[in-house]
Amino acid sequence: MILVNDQFIPRENVHIDIEDRGYQFGDGIYEVIRVYDGKIFRLDQHLLRLERSAKEIKLVLPMSIQEIKEKITKLIAINNLSTGIVYFQVTRGVAPREHSFPNNRVSVLTAYTTEKERPLDKIQNGIKVVTTEDIRWLRCDIKTINLLGNVLAKQFAIENQADETIQIRNNIVTEGSSSNFFIVKNGNLYTHPANNFILKGITRDVVEEIAQKLGIKFIEQEFSLNEVYKADEAFITSTTVEIMPVLQVNDTKISHQPGQITKTLQNEFSKLL
Amino acid sequence: MILVNDQFIPRENVHIDIEDRGYQFGDGIYEVIRVYDGKIFRLDQHLLRLERSAKEIKLVLPMSIQEIKEKITKLIAINNLSTGIVYFQVTRGVAPREHSFPNNRVSVLTAYTTEKERPLDKIQNGIKVVTTEDIRWLRCDIKTINLLGNVLAKQFAIENQADETIQIRNNIVTEGSSSNFFIVKNGNLYTHPANNFILKGITRDVVEEIAQKLGIKFIEQEFSLNEVYKADEAFITSTTVEIMPVLQVNDTKISHQPGQITKTLQNEFSKLL
Repeated sequence: MILVNDQFIPRENVHIDIEDRGYQFGDGIYEVIRVYDGKIFRLDQHLLRLERSAKEIKLVLPMSIQEIKEKITKLIAINNLSTGIVYFQVTRGVAPREHSFPNNRVSVLTAYTTEKERPLDKIQNGIKVVTTEDIRWLRCDIKTINLLGNVLAKQFAIENQADETIQIRNNIVTEGSSSNFFIVKNGNLYTHPANNFILKGITRDVVEEIAQKLGIKFIEQEFSLNEVYKADEAFITSTTVEIMPVLQVNDTKISHQPGQITKTLQNEFSKLL
Repeated sequence: MILVNDQFIPRENVHIDIEDRGYQFGDGIYEVIRVYDGKIFRLDQHLLRLERSAKEIKLVLPMSIQEIKEKITKLIAINNLSTGIVYFQVTRGVAPREHSFPNNRVSVLTAYTTEKERPLDKIQNGIKVVTTEDIRWLRCDIKTINLLGNVLAKQFAIENQADETIQIRNNIVTEGSSSNFFIVKNGNLYTHPANNFILKGITRDVVEEIAQKLGIKFIEQEFSLNEVYKADEAFITSTTVEIMPVLQVNDTKISHQPGQITKTLQNEFSKLL
């Protein structure tokens, strides 16, 4: 079943309008929320971020955050989701095509669930990443469905036998195509500041919490690709990949196995689930 | 009737899938084509640009350009369109949501027509524009449906009692939210070079042709907002607005009526129709 505004509708009966602004302009926002054994992880944080995204593009949510929370919880129950994700998006609704906002806005909310196991193999054994120029717009802090830059970056990884592409803007490492990027140097964590050039991940926040708890320094600071090559450890984070070690960046080996700090963070993360 | 891949379907029976990549990633390209008195204007040029857009994002068109041409021509006939536009888009198809391209890509082509008169009042009397920072991605040369930056720019115009917003990147004037921007100084035309920072408009090309014919210099060169304020004339171009005089930029009057060069270009443009 799929949630469409306030109704639960079978997949085959869900029809998106050709003039939905999501389809013509990518004029919408979204969240991907993790469910472990039927339990939602960090739902409140995702909904806070959704609320912020809506505000930044002046999109009116069709119901309150509390109602969205109840609907998502019900959707998970109806679909009997065990371990997987909830994909959730809101667009600025259906209207004759004009760039400017329609006067009579009725946003379109859709959400569905997908069974998805944790990527345990890669979480344990690490991945290879490649790098590319960050060509995205200057409001990467808003979680919108204008994702073509991210799509092209991710495809670049696949075509280069890698798992993720780390983007670089003006010689500064920003983030992955659908993940935040961290390096570890001398026992400290470094990641790009949460400004307009990156999407502030919920799992990034969790890593910050864990670091504080363990007394590991969490440093938001710009760094170059050259500093990545010299790092002791590296990893990416996202709702679906959790904390995933990066063993190789382009042709450079960062470490031969997941680093000690990365494993410590993963261990604490597992305890939270 | 709406064209969906190779079929003509009544509006009410057209359903877009919730997992169409156009709806989840803005992963698609489009064109807006002008029809005057049942005759299509510059169809070949639009289709050439569509082909280039597809190539740049590695999207496979579902049929040949020749077939698309035939289908669009038929659509106009079926809908008995007199003066209006054909809106045409192609997305990378329906697949379970993953950023990277699906293996089994079947692109989704949709097209529909809308009656739309020429905006003669504004073409004759001119408009006011405002300016804002250009926050779009670095491949504005590709005509994709990732249009949220353009949407926000256009909305900014509406909220400021203007008709269009001219965008500025690093102190260089790039283009409007859905138009190219020109200034006239000492009898010469100036517009932003056709590189990755602007969409090379079909009407921009027509202006170049007309300028060559009339012996007016068409100069592709970067210029600042300050140079706009000192211009003799200014105008925007697009498929729907044609050549539209800009009389005021923010609080600065450029001219009290459409300038002589602008009117000359408009006059030649009308002859082409």
